[in-house]
Amino acid sequence: MAQLLRHVRCMATRVTRLRVGDSAEMRKRFTMEEVKAFAELSGDDNPLHTDQDYAANTRFGKCIVHGVLMNGLISAIMGAKLPGEGTIYLSQEIAFRGPLYVGDEAVARVEVLDIRKDKPVVTFATQCFNSSGDLLMDGKGKVMIPKDTHANSIEQADN
Amino acid sequence: MAQLLRHVRCMATRVTRLRVGDSAEMRKRFTMEEVKAFAELSGDDNPLHTDQDYAANTRFGKCIVHGVLMNGLISAIMGAKLPGEGTIYLSQEIAFRGPLYVGDEAVARVEVLDIRKDKPVVTFATQCFNSSGDLLMDGKGKVMIPKDTHANSIEQADN
Repeated sequence: MAQLLRHVRCMATRVTRLRVGDSAEMRKRFTMEEVKAFAELSGDDNPLHTDQDYAANTRFGKCIVHGVLMNGLISAIMGAKLPGEGTIYLSQEIAFRGPLYVGDEAVARVEVLDIRKDKPVVTFATQCFNSSGDLLMDGKGKVMIPKDTHANSIEQADN
Repeated sequence: MAQLLRHVRCMATRVTRLRVGDSAEMRKRFTMEEVKAFAELSGDDNPLHTDQDYAANTRFGKCIVHGVLMNGLISAIMGAKLPGEGTIYLSQEIAFRGPLYVGDEAVARVEVLDIRKDKPVVTFATQCFNSSGDLLMDGKGKVMIPKDTHANSIEQADN
């Protein structure tokens, strides 16, 4: 139950304490219009993402969301939920395990793996699943968190 | 000179042969409108990226582009230039070294580090600089390339 209560799903923009095991999720379906908007924004106009006829002749059979856009959900959780506002991305490792099809629901999830004591740096497991529970993206992200959040997290861990 | 000639800047959507050392670049300035569009698309509304007043009170002093959006340029080069159409992202490691400010030019660059002989998998160095030449993002990306491109690359390496 304690673990369940620590599972952060609220829309608060600032978490003042973190514990190893804290997690947060975000769900999103990317429409073809959104995928095309990202292709335009980034310049990544690989037809695998935006051309149904082209995608039909690939191993995927239909259009898939850009991997980097799917990873945007991870950044979104970190910047908006856990740790929230003021978070600065330091690094990310990503392995793409399977395709997110345009229109399918993505369930992105982050979980605190490590909180450094000597500096305000936190490592997260970062994953994305489809609605069937298949792992689509797996990795680790490291972020810098606001100093007061770090101080509170360390103080709590020491108690 | 040979190295210079191998430097790929053309807009061709398909490269039929790759060599270790091949490279390609893409330049882009993200406007505030584009950064806000990405915040909307991804749900990453961290005010560090979109709120000038908030950013003014951070270590950066002004709004910075989402790291994952900057990494979109790497995906764009791979999907549109080198290797080009049909490329499938397998993995990416990213270290963020410095901020890309909204409105500043980003110079993204990929370079072939390794071409596997046993399967169509290619590893790239992936980097992004600002217009002063400061390294903003550093890493490695692994992609799967079309089989005929791989066959041509291997055949060439063996000659």
